[in-house]
Formats: sequence, C-alpha cells, structure tokens
Amino acid sequence: MDLVAVEPARAAGGMARDRGAGPGSTHVVTVQCDDRPGIVSAVSQCIASQGGNITEAQQFNDHATGRFFMRVEVDFRNARGSVDAFRRSFESVGAEFSMDWRIRDRSVHKRVLVLVSQHEHCLRDLLYRWRVGDLSMDLVGVASNHVRPAGLGMPDSVPFHHLPLTRETRPQQEAAIRRLVEESKADLVVLARYMQILSDDLARFLAGRCINIHHSFLPGFKGAKPYHQAYDRGVKMIGATAHFVTADLDEGPIIHQDVEHISHSDRPEALVRKGRDIERRVLAHAVRSFLEDRVFPNGGKTVVFAE
Amino acid sequence: MDLVAVEPARAAGGMARDRGAGPGSTHVVTVQCDDRPGIVSAVSQCIASQGGNITEAQQFNDHATGRFFMRVEVDFRNARGSVDAFRRSFESVGAEFSMDWRIRDRSVHKRVLVLVSQHEHCLRDLLYRWRVGDLSMDLVGVASNHVRPAGLGMPDSVPFHHLPLTRETRPQQEAAIRRLVEESKADLVVLARYMQILSDDLARFLAGRCINIHHSFLPGFKGAKPYHQAYDRGVKMIGATAHFVTADLDEGPIIHQDVEHISHSDRPEALVRKGRDIERRVLAHAVRSFLEDRVFPNGGKTVVFAE
Amino acid sequence: MDLVAVEPARAAGGMARDRGAGPGSTHVVTVQCDDRPGIVSAVSQCIASQGGNITEAQQFNDHATGRFFMRVEVDFRNARGSVDAFRRSFESVGAEFSMDWRIRDRSVHKRVLVLVSQHEHCLRDLLYRWRVGDLSMDLVGVASNHVRPAGLGMPDSVPFHHLPLTRETRPQQEAAIRRLVEESKADLVVLARYMQILSDDLARFLAGRCINIHHSFLPGFKGAKPYHQAYDRGVKMIGATAHFVTADLDEGPIIHQDVEHISHSDRPEALVRKGRDIERRVLAHAVRSFLEDRVFPNGGKTVVFAE
Amino acid sequence: MDLVAVEPARAAGGMARDRGAGPGSTHVVTVQCDDRPGIVSAVSQCIASQGGNITEAQQFNDHATGRFFMRVEVDFRNARGSVDAFRRSFESVGAEFSMDWRIRDRSVHKRVLVLVSQHEHCLRDLLYRWRVGDLSMDLVGVASNHVRPAGLGMPDSVPFHHLPLTRETRPQQEAAIRRLVEESKADLVVLARYMQILSDDLARFLAGRCINIHHSFLPGFKGAKPYHQAYDRGVKMIGATAHFVTADLDEGPIIHQDVEHISHSDRPEALVRKGRDIERRVLAHAVRSFLEDRVFPNGGKTVVFAE
Repeated sequence: MDLVAVEPARAAGGMARDRGAGPGSTHVVTVQCDDRPGIVSAVSQCIASQGGNITEAQQFNDHATGRFFMRVEVDFRNARGSVDAFRRSFESVGAEFSMDWRIRDRSVHKRVLVLVSQHEHCLRDLLYRWRVGDLSMDLVGVASNHVRPAGLGMPDSVPFHHLPLTRETRPQQEAAIRRLVEESKADLVVLARYMQILSDDLARFLAGRCINIHHSFLPGFKGAKPYHQAYDRGVKMIGATAHFVTADLDEGPIIHQDVEHISHSDRPEALVRKGRDIERRVLAHAVRSFLEDRVFPNGGKTVVFAE
Repeated sequence: MDLVAVEPARAAGGMARDRGAGPGSTHVVTVQCDDRPGIVSAVSQCIASQGGNITEAQQFNDHATGRFFMRVEVDFRNARGSVDAFRRSFESVGAEFSMDWRIRDRSVHKRVLVLVSQHEHCLRDLLYRWRVGDLSMDLVGVASNHVRPAGLGMPDSVPFHHLPLTRETRPQQEAAIRRLVEESKADLVVLARYMQILSDDLARFLAGRCINIHHSFLPGFKGAKPYHQAYDRGVKMIGATAHFVTADLDEGPIIHQDVEHISHSDRPEALVRKGRDIERRVLAHAVRSFLEDRVFPNGGKTVVFAE
Repeated sequence: MDLVAVEPARAAGGMARDRGAGPGSTHVVTVQCDDRPGIVSAVSQCIASQGGNITEAQQFNDHATGRFFMRVEVDFRNARGSVDAFRRSFESVGAEFSMDWRIRDRSVHKRVLVLVSQHEHCLRDLLYRWRVGDLSMDLVGVASNHVRPAGLGMPDSVPFHHLPLTRETRPQQEAAIRRLVEESKADLVVLARYMQILSDDLARFLAGRCINIHHSFLPGFKGAKPYHQAYDRGVKMIGATAHFVTADLDEGPIIHQDVEHISHSDRPEALVRKGRDIERRVLAHAVRSFLEDRVFPNGGKTVVFAE
Repeated sequence: MDLVAVEPARAAGGMARDRGAGPGSTHVVTVQCDDRPGIVSAVSQCIASQGGNITEAQQFNDHATGRFFMRVEVDFRNARGSVDAFRRSFESVGAEFSMDWRIRDRSVHKRVLVLVSQHEHCLRDLLYRWRVGDLSMDLVGVASNHVRPAGLGMPDSVPFHHLPLTRETRPQQEAAIRRLVEESKADLVVLARYMQILSDDLARFLAGRCINIHHSFLPGFKGAKPYHQAYDRGVKMIGATAHFVTADLDEGPIIHQDVEHISHSDRPEALVRKGRDIERRVLAHAVRSFLEDRVFPNGGKTVVFAE
C-alpha cells in the first residue's frame, strides 16, 4: 500500500491533532524484519541522508522469535529532497534487510468502518472521540444488524448501513459487509460490540485490520455473558480486551486490556454498567494505537509501541 | 423539599437502572445531625416498624466536628403501610436528634441543567451517559455562552439556551441563568467546562447544588491554563477535580478527583487531550454520586458514600 | 470462639494503629444470617441499650442467596455496662435471627502463622508491614519447606520452623503443620508463596482461615508457571489473586485481586519481577481485611467490606 | 566518569537481573546534546561499525528547549572489537555533536548511600528490593540522625552510620555526610524520608545525584505535615513525589509520582499509613530508573525513559 502519494489530508471530524504541522510534514516509517546488527543504523542513515529529522523512535527485538520491529516518526519540513525521493532511497534498505516496511503521511487519515449491534456505547464513544479530535480517522461508515439508533449525532456524510441478519441470510449479509469494506476502502474494521460471530472466511478476509472488543479480561471468561460468568465466580475485578479478529473466537492477538475493581455488592447489571466504561476506553485505546501505526501483529501476539 | 409525594417516575433517557423495581419501591433516606449514641437504632427501628427492609446502609461519624452522616436505601415493596406513613413516623425521629433529613423515591429522577462553553467534551459525555442509562436524571436543559455545537444528538425535548456574554451583559446573563434554574426546577446545575467565573451572588444562589469540573488535581494548579502550568512544572501525572461551586474560586468542597500518568514527551496539547478523558470521567462520577444522594457537604469538605 | 474475654492486648510489632484507644474500648460485631426486615434495628438497639456508640457500620444483602452480612464497630468507652453485659444481651438478638455472630475486642490481635517456600518476597513484605504497624497481628511463627532465609530481621521471639518435604514424608510434614496450627492457636494461616499443594484433609482442616496468594489474575492462568502462560498468550496485564484455600486448587473464594499493565517487551523474567510487587500488595490487603474481620465466606465467593 | 573500564561486576544483593548475560555483554549509552538531524544515524552507525547490536533504544527531542536525549542498550557479545575500541570510536561522534555522553557496563552496579530519619518504611523497602534483586545496586551504607532501627536484616557488610544532629552541630554533621559520600564513592544518595533540610551547599554538592521522596503529590502540599494538609483540604486522593534535591525545597525536578484514592473517613493517621505504601513505591521506582540510566535532568524537569 503506497500511502506516500501526496494526497490532501482528509478532514478530521473535529479539533486539531496534538502534533505536526501541514500535510506531508510528518511521516511514520514502520519496519519489520529478522533481527541483525545494523538495522537502526541503516534506517537512520537513510533518513538523515534525505534531511529528515527523527522526532520519535521505538524498536523491539523479540528474543523468542528473532524478529525486529521499529516505528520512527520523521519530520521532513526541512528536508532537502521530496518524500518520494526518500521512499525510493528506502527501497534499497528494505531490500537489504528483507524488510516489511511502510511509509505513511501522518496527515492522511486511515479509513474506518464500524460494525455494531444493539449495544451502542462503544459506537457512541468512538463518535464522541472522533468529534473532539481524539481519533484522527476518516469514518467511512457504520453498519449494524439492528436499525439506526436515535440521537447518534452522526453527520449525514457518514452512511449508516442496516444489514439485518437471520440464520439463513448470514452468507449474503457477510458478503454485504465484505463489499462495504472493499467499496469504502476501509483500512480498519472495528467491531464495536458487534455481537455476531464472523465466519472463518470473513475473519481471514479481515485479518490484521479488524479489531474486536471482548467484554472480559481474556483469557478469563471467554464466550457468552462474561459479566455473568464473572459474577458467578466472585472475582474482584472485571475487564475488557481489544484484540485482532481471527477465526479462533476470543483467541486473536491482544492489543490492549484494562480492568476495574468491583465488590460483592455489584450484581450482574452493575457489572454490565461498569464494564461499558472499560470496554469503550479499551477499544478507543486500541483503535488509536492502530491509527497511529503503533500496532504490529507478531504471531499470536502483538507489539504495541506506547505513545 | 418533600420528594416523597408519589409522582410517576420521570422517564430516563435510556436503558433501565441497575436496581430496584417499579416506582415507589425503593427510597433513599439521608440524615445529618450531631453524633450521639442511638441514632442508627432509632432510624432502623422506625424503618422496621413500617415493614421496610434496609438494602444498603452507610454512615460516617466525623470525629473532628462531631457530625453524623447516614444514607440508607429502603425497600418498601412488602411494607405494611404507605411511604407517607413512614414519612410521618420519621418526623419524630428527626426531631429527637435535630436531624437534617430527607426521604426520596429512587425512581423520581433529579432535574439537571448543564452549563457549557466552547469545550464540549464533558457535555457530550454527560449526554452519552444519559443516553445509555448510566446517569438516571432528567435533563432539563443545556445553556452555553456559545452557539449550539453540531451533532450533539440531543432530543428536541431538551432545550438549548444560547446565553452570550460580554463584560457589560454579565449581570443580565447571570439573571437569565438564575431564571433558567428556577423555571426548570433544576436540582443540580453542572458546570461542564463552563469557562466563566460566577459572581458571588450566583455562587451563593447555587450553593450545594452546583458542581464544577476543574482541569487540575487541586490544590495544585489553580486558575487558568492548568495543563500548561503542569507542563511547565514537569509533573508526572495530571488530574481533574469535581467540586461544589463556592464564591472562592477553585476552593469549593471536593467531591471527586482522578489522575493519569504522563511523561516528558507530552506537550501541553497532549495534556489537554489526555485531560479530557480524566475530566469527563471525574465529572460523571461526581454527578452520579450526587444523583444518588451519596454526597453531603461537610463544611469545606464533603462526605461521599461509595457505591 | 469467645474473643470478648478481657485479655490484655498483645503487643504489635511496631507503631500504633490508626484508630481506637486502649484495650477494650473498640469492639467489632460481625453478623451473618438469613435476610429479613428488622435485623439492623435489633442489632443497633442492642448496642444503644448498652451505651455503645456505632463508629462504623457496613452491611450486605445477597439477593441471590437471601443471606445478610453485617460488620459494626462499636465504641464502648462511655458505655454504661461492661462488654460482657453487652455480649449477654446480644445473645437473644442472635438467637432471634438465627445469627452466626461474633464480638471481638479490636485491641486483641489475631494470631498468624506464615508458610513459605523458596520465594521470600511475600514473607519479607508481611514482616515489613508487621514491623511498621500496617498489620495488627500476633506473628506466632514462620514455617518453610526450605531453610531459613538470611536477613529476615525477624525477632527471636518468632519461631522459624524448617519442615522439609519429600514425596514420602508429605503426610508427616502435613501433620507437623497441623500441630503448629493447633499449638500456636493460629487464627489465620497465610500461604505466602508456599509452593506445595495441600492435601484435601489439610485444606479442610484450614477451611475459612487459610489465605493463599496465586500469581495470576484468576480464573486466567491456573496452575503452574502462570507468568510464563501469560507471556505465551501475549496478555497486556498481569495480576495476582488472594483467596481462601479449598480442596479445589485455585478455585477457592477470592478475597482480593489486582493487576498491572505490561508490554510486549516484558520477558517472563520481567513478569516475575513485576508480579512480585502485585503479589505482596494483594496478599497484604487480603490479610489486613481478614485481621479486621472484614472478610466473610459466602459459598464459593466472599463478602469483603472495604476499609 | 569512565565506567567502561572493565571492572568485575559487583555482586548484587540477591537474585539475578531480568536481562543480559555475563559482565561486559550489555552496555548502556546515554547521550544529551542540541537537537539536529543525523544524531541517531551517527550513534547507531558507530555501534554497528563495532559489531554491537542495539537491543533497546529511546529518544526524546524537547521542542521547547531544542535539546535531544537518547538511551541505547547495546549487546556486545558478538562484537568484533572490544568495548574500549567502541568507546574510542564514539569519542569523535560525541565531539561532532557536542554531546554529553556516557557508556556504562550494565553489570557494574551503581553505588548507593541511603539517608534516613525515624520513619524507616522507605529504608526497609529499599532493603527488601535489594534483597530480592529488584534493585541492582551496591548498597555502600546507611546513615541516620537516629539510632539504628531493630530488625533491619541488613548484612554486616553494609555499614550503618549514626550521625546525630542538633542545631549547633549541623555544619559538622553535613561535613560528615559529605565525607561519607566521597569515601563510599556513592553514585546516588537517597533521602529515604530523611527529615532534615539540606543546606544549599550540600544540596549543590549532591546536585543530580540525590533523590528525595516528598510525601505529597507536588506541587500540592509543600512543606511540613502534608498528610494533615491534605486532610484539612478534603482532597480525595493523596500522593508522593520523588525528585532531585535542589537548594529550593520541594521544587527540584520531579522524577516520579503516584497517588491513591482516599475517602472522607480517612483520618490523618490513616493517610500516613496509606501514604507509606505510595512513598516507598514511588521512591523505589525513581531509584530503579536512576540505576538503569533512564533519568536525565532537563532544566527544572526530567526526562525519564520508561522500562
């Protein structure tokens, strides 16, 4: 995917981002390859040779697998050459180390499609964060197997797709989702409490670009009604888990988790209510990390570079 | 204020509450008086004599001041007499101990007026929580010294009041706020990042029923631009404080506070963004506690009974 | 167990406790029975009739089981009669409601025996907290299947028992533990990373008075090497769980839990190190709650009244 | 300070460290200079040219001051040349960018002197962490203006210095501290609740290598009895702050902070008790960061690279 091509920055929903200046000024370089000495040197030399200034850099060597991961933010405002020149010059570095690499203009937002069912709190929270400028993304659509909820405050420019579902129509409904993803050119599909299990086919189609929020602290309480499971076991904390969707339900690579203390007096209904706050917070964090190229799938796990 | 009068429960914005059954079944008794032996006994005996069942009870003896505070939830579903009979019978208990007391039907929601300025995140969060059923309140209106923000998703039944403000028109504007409070019969006024300093008169008029959110961990960084103050000092955490409004700016009794870790790499803009999440969480917590009669002013401090 | 008998307060290891005055002044009343109207009234009336003043009170009605739980702190400094008189008068209340009840002098410390294996951090932390006055307990002994660690700083008055263990000698070793418990009159046995599985017999013998710390956030990662399990799964938080010991390994009623964020760069060794801090914090919290009569077993769960 | 000279690794108090292999294998490079393009490239090229492998790297560009900070961990196990050769080769890089730089063998522990007064909890916690291997340091001594506390469990190899203090003997006592620092070659002096105000002279002498723990969340509640101040103000959280000591009391650059929720029912004594846990945790975190070369003074602030 060539994201370097100089497109005008797509408008965010709301307020300005924390960092950076105009379009094209800041780029994110992400790299993944087998670890060996000299990678950081080669990458940083290539950047310096084009007059870019590294403003943020993180790396990780996975000793268990021998893989190397890197994320670098580069300021090209005072660069001698163009970003295209940098891109061409990076190609030889990438080839030398057999890198899986990408260069992205920070001002070009990722395109996001949200899937939801009857519980709307995660959707509403994503909309809120998009509005206030917390999530720099292009919201390309919202799809639900239920009818449009009232009072979303969603602009008319964002289409809402009602994709009802019965046991018989599942294949057609999934085909419709697939079409939506393709037509909207979505970079990310967010399952914001979308309570349908994806088929293996659809899960594979969305591999690496679909984030789900599960309402328990995995691996505890997989499956249905996790808050009721938590109540029955008598745990003293509940949590939520954002993970990449894979064909194995609730077993995908974990991106982010969080928890809160509860007490004996919290009935299942209270857990559901408290859980809403955790779910939306955890999902938003994972989505934000993804939008900023901080998340790397790493086998059954993830590498997530903190802000 | 006699809240016992059997009114039909006003409709909430969204989903059902955690607890309780139909209107009138659960009542909250709140008590404040000088401490001495026998109070708990007298209160619980009065409840038992009417066939009420105590489902939740909390108390606090302030050793520094000798004041006693109590909150009791009573289930009257199987009560022999009416709630009115209970209320009459409680009058003698209240008189005996010179109590400041109140009995409130949990299903009768408090009436809330929200004041806001250009930063809308706290307002949007209150609307979200009201929608999903997190805050059981009657939203009687929203007022701002700015124009109505787009995409609030607020139902037409909730009026929006634009009350612009100049140095010259402050008295008239404050008079308009006061009228709004009176006409809407608001039990609570929430300053959801309302960036105007109230006059002493208005602060006094709203005493004990007006909650402000200050965007710092008080008593650190009072006054303007607290996130910039925090950045300049180089603190490693930022926070927010919900407090009752008094004539002394940023000195009112604190209801709730929370914080988050930050790092050297967070510029003021990042602190503002991270702070939004803390502010809305802290404000919602304080409002929720107030709506459930868990907050008691106690001189320059508060007593807040946890859920 | 009659704890009311006026014993002189046993000396704590270190500094003074937060509350209360001399021996006998503060008592804790704990009650458990089937729920029905009038319990709080009867208990508080009995206290008031003897001139006691309730300084702290908490209760819980378990709607799922119909059980009622209560903990009351009573100040008897200005009481008319003796604590013995109160105790006699309480007997009829207890009988009326078929209560499981207890009255304990707060100044009479519980007797605690600690079992440990090669990981000493929880033991060292308990000793630290006992020293600085955080845990008001009588430390009656420490037993280990390993030799005494160096530099414990434990006073000579606390005996250390080396109880080595082989597959063949397990019955004898468990018999020795049982004797220790009986002879030391221990009210509580703490498994402070004691890495041996108790026999069903010993677990039953210690039922309700033996707290274990498991180094995972249960129900996730039961069994051996939980930090390695957590690493392999790629979770983003690790935790610890303090629970009552039952014959079902890692399935006992949970008393307290806590967690911390980790990242992809934390190898199992780092998880072990970070986990130490969580384990000792969680265990100390559970022990402290138990020492203050805040923990009630409730079937497979617990009721824990917060401080 | 030339720490590269190949000294045998000084023995730690306890268990093995998380990472790294034998002495000399892992080195930490720390760099500070004015920001300009090419720094990362030059540093990483120098490392690669000697056959070192970067295993961890963090950097920060302070936009407000134009300063650049970097910390790199290098594995030299498979290096072609010696660490000395690397050091010589780094000299030209350092000169080119006018760097303040250092290369340290991770297996050579820093030397730490602890100062304490009558509150021993922070000292006991540091000893605990040193014992279990949490803090990789050489404990070169403990000094106090009080007599040696009982049951420290400190090995005989660590000297305890009783340096009593009166108003008249302050200059002599401070001279004794200064001598201790010099003779013990301490890299770090920890004020573990040392309740004496240092003279400006001594503060200057210890600049950049002396960490104090203040028992409040600065800038709130400077000065004496912060927990009592917090109680009087009615805040809902208390905290602690670890900072570099400067001549300005409680105004030094902050290294780490943390807080905990409290409630209206916490009397000052309870705040003191809860505060102990926060203080020791915050101090240990700051000390650990310092020991691992993660802390850089940056004017009145600090840069602290997270683990």
